[in-house]
Amino acid sequence: MTLKAFEHLAKGETLSLDEVLANLKTDKDGLIAAIAQQYDTKEVLMLAYMNEVSIRETLETGQVCYWSRSRQTYWRKGESSGNRQRFISMAFDCDGDAILLQVDQTGPACHTNRRDCFFFGVEDNKVVIQSAPMTDA
Amino acid sequence: MTLKAFEHLAKGETLSLDEVLANLKTDKDGLIAAIAQQYDTKEVLMLAYMNEVSIRETLETGQVCYWSRSRQTYWRKGESSGNRQRFISMAFDCDGDAILLQVDQTGPACHTNRRDCFFFGVEDNKVVIQSAPMTDA
Repeated sequence: MTLKAFEHLAKGETLSLDEVLANLKTDKDGLIAAIAQQYDTKEVLMLAYMNEVSIRETLETGQVCYWSRSRQTYWRKGESSGNRQRFISMAFDCDGDAILLQVDQTGPACHTNRRDCFFFGVEDNKVVIQSAPMTDA
Repeated sequence: MTLKAFEHLAKGETLSLDEVLANLKTDKDGLIAAIAQQYDTKEVLMLAYMNEVSIRETLETGQVCYWSRSRQTYWRKGESSGNRQRFISMAFDCDGDAILLQVDQTGPACHTNRRDCFFFGVEDNKVVIQSAPMTDA
């Protein structure tokens, strides 16, 4: 599926959420890539995956829920660590195979306790560790 | 593969680029998800895919090169449209299955001529078209 049929709609036109969800271009496991961006600072925190159920749960509960590909289960971000992602808003991309989430992340987003997951920074022919785990204040 | 073995390195420690590239957690087609973020405004422009060759080309040429899954070929962003993505920097995430690119996007990033691809915004039970195609000045 794809959202291609809708890409020529004008700004402000609306579709039903059900119609859009039914036309997402998910992978063979029903998943779509989801980028989490801190809504105020605009830092990109992480990339994870969602399915239709986790998208709907996120919208209903106001807390971001992913699908964990490694654990093959729903992943309610921060449920065990307390490092929750409060849901602010979401948008799908032109071809319906990615989601951009605006979130409010409590503490570290990364399982390494770093604020974000993108800490392997390329510099010339090297990769430099760009950040340290967060420490409690 | 995964970058898990390296996640406990301290800030400032370095790895060789070759070692990191050899340990990326690519999909069965050798691809990894790549987020493009406008380096100064921090807007998330698009999500696409790269393979090792396109990562190396991007680093060498300073222009972002993706792998197009739909066309099954290298996709030198803006080669035909002129809407280039100048490469600023890149970082890999903790488990080595995503790249965050900082770019300088000329004009629209989206094939619909919108600045970014994330224009299907969820509002309550609806999806609202959030932006219009860019027009030439």
